[in-house]
Amino acid sequence: MPSHVGGIDIGGTKVAAIVAGESGPLARRVMPTPKSGPIDTLPEQAIALLRQACQDAGVAESDLGMVGVSSCGPFVKDGGLIGLATPNICGAHSPGLPNDWEVIPLEAGLRRHLPAVRIENDCVAALVAERTFGAVVDEPDCVYVTWSTGIGFGFCVDGHVLRGKNGNAGHAGHMLISERQDAICGCGNRGDVEGLIAGRNLGDRLGMPTAELFAAARAGDAAALAHVHEAARWFGRALYDVTTCLDTRQFVIGGSVWLHHGEWLAPLVSEEIRRHFPALTDGVELRMTKLGNLVADLGALCLVLPDDWISAWRGTQPWSRLAPLPG
Amino acid sequence: MPSHVGGIDIGGTKVAAIVAGESGPLARRVMPTPKSGPIDTLPEQAIALLRQACQDAGVAESDLGMVGVSSCGPFVKDGGLIGLATPNICGAHSPGLPNDWEVIPLEAGLRRHLPAVRIENDCVAALVAERTFGAVVDEPDCVYVTWSTGIGFGFCVDGHVLRGKNGNAGHAGHMLISERQDAICGCGNRGDVEGLIAGRNLGDRLGMPTAELFAAARAGDAAALAHVHEAARWFGRALYDVTTCLDTRQFVIGGSVWLHHGEWLAPLVSEEIRRHFPALTDGVELRMTKLGNLVADLGALCLVLPDDWISAWRGTQPWSRLAPLPG
Repeated sequence: MPSHVGGIDIGGTKVAAIVAGESGPLARRVMPTPKSGPIDTLPEQAIALLRQACQDAGVAESDLGMVGVSSCGPFVKDGGLIGLATPNICGAHSPGLPNDWEVIPLEAGLRRHLPAVRIENDCVAALVAERTFGAVVDEPDCVYVTWSTGIGFGFCVDGHVLRGKNGNAGHAGHMLISERQDAICGCGNRGDVEGLIAGRNLGDRLGMPTAELFAAARAGDAAALAHVHEAARWFGRALYDVTTCLDTRQFVIGGSVWLHHGEWLAPLVSEEIRRHFPALTDGVELRMTKLGNLVADLGALCLVLPDDWISAWRGTQPWSRLAPLPG
Repeated sequence: MPSHVGGIDIGGTKVAAIVAGESGPLARRVMPTPKSGPIDTLPEQAIALLRQACQDAGVAESDLGMVGVSSCGPFVKDGGLIGLATPNICGAHSPGLPNDWEVIPLEAGLRRHLPAVRIENDCVAALVAERTFGAVVDEPDCVYVTWSTGIGFGFCVDGHVLRGKNGNAGHAGHMLISERQDAICGCGNRGDVEGLIAGRNLGDRLGMPTAELFAAARAGDAAALAHVHEAARWFGRALYDVTTCLDTRQFVIGGSVWLHHGEWLAPLVSEEIRRHFPALTDGVELRMTKLGNLVADLGALCLVLPDDWISAWRGTQPWSRLAPLPG
């Protein structure tokens, strides 16, 4: 019986690897996301990183059982396995990058070295973490949403976490909700949720970085404030649209924009949801993420935690150890 | 052991009751949807209709086991049970109707007389029918959508049919996808899918009934044709938005607009889906309903059919008997 589990979190800018035992996380390593070299560079370096974390923790590789992987998407099927077609990493989808990768063979590359891997979209993994240890423990009808550089969702309906045909359920940041031609998303859409209000796009239309836009709004600049308020209403409209699809009860919200400005903006977002179709929106709740910046790492681990560890960790909350771990 | 099952289909204009035995449907009765009288008039009359169908079929009430109910929504919780808050039936939500009903106690009213009832939204039931006997038998990631007087959806993801906190999953006809203020939906929304293209709204903007609009478009009238093509693109955009949420593979499409014009409009709808985000939309298929106008009645029955009847009916297809049944 393997005595430990692993977690790998793959983002557009960094990759993290974690090793945990029954008592909690033991070691964590981080590196910048590799974006050049052969097409299997990312899985190979992620494996190397996980091995380093094992060494740091004094855990033999043979003692590692399941490894959970939380990754940015979208995923595509690649010989029956999960491949990554992520615009932030794959040069074939974003001309500025130093590679010509079209589909990274993520699952094939990891399975070459690891006995048992479970890969999920990062917001799906975050939702699993919030349902396991965070703001929606065991809630059957809930959604995780991150408002950050991009906008992503993880969905749970009737107690089932949704995956979809390729594991891309929850890509609702790419829902078209407006005809605005100046709201351009990295995927090419005009008028999708990300194009309208993702952190990487929000400041553009006023010609300033998004952080400055929020600072100006908070300082009372009228144009900045109007722009931020409009963004909050668009965000509420996106959550309303998701509610019509899923009949959701709780939204757990994270991501850098929300972590900094969520308390301030929540009333506007709620108001935008509630002013539509009361039979669908009555009782919908917004909750702040309880796991904050740990949600990605913990999401990867939560995909593979044994049930009896979960019960124990709910009491001891050992994930707080992740914060000061090196990297 | 009860030897028969029942089905009740509740729509905005008619209610149908069906009785079926192992060999197939035996009797069907239909009446206009009651819209006046005490607040439990609808469930009481539906029970009376089902009893008439039992008599027609020569089936004793005591031989009736489960009864499946397919109903228009939205549903609200009413003392822990399902209540109807349907704008087309409840006067409190639509001032023109001859009643002041706010929430019809549907489940409570039916349970007073029936031992075992399963109630689902009509498009959820239609999806179950299409997955049981229709165009998407056993497909895990599929959606039923009706383009008719209104627009409704039933969702299946990873093999789970979605219900949501009150059974309202799939109300994506009320997704806001446009800022057009002249696209007014019965729910009060401006710019939702129904407001833009539901049968009851589509002709309004050109000042003619929707059937005439389609006839003019087919006859080559340029304005009508442009309007219908635009509607098909909005419909495609709605299906694209659902795809981003659910990572769907198949859309099964029914409803009067699609039954009459689907073959003609399908290429435009497909094109609108495919021109967005290929990693999400590659491989998405549109299929015509296989059950057509029988999907509602059969949907109610499919909610409660024993597994061994399903296997047998797949061979004998006895639902074709429903078409010529009286009513």
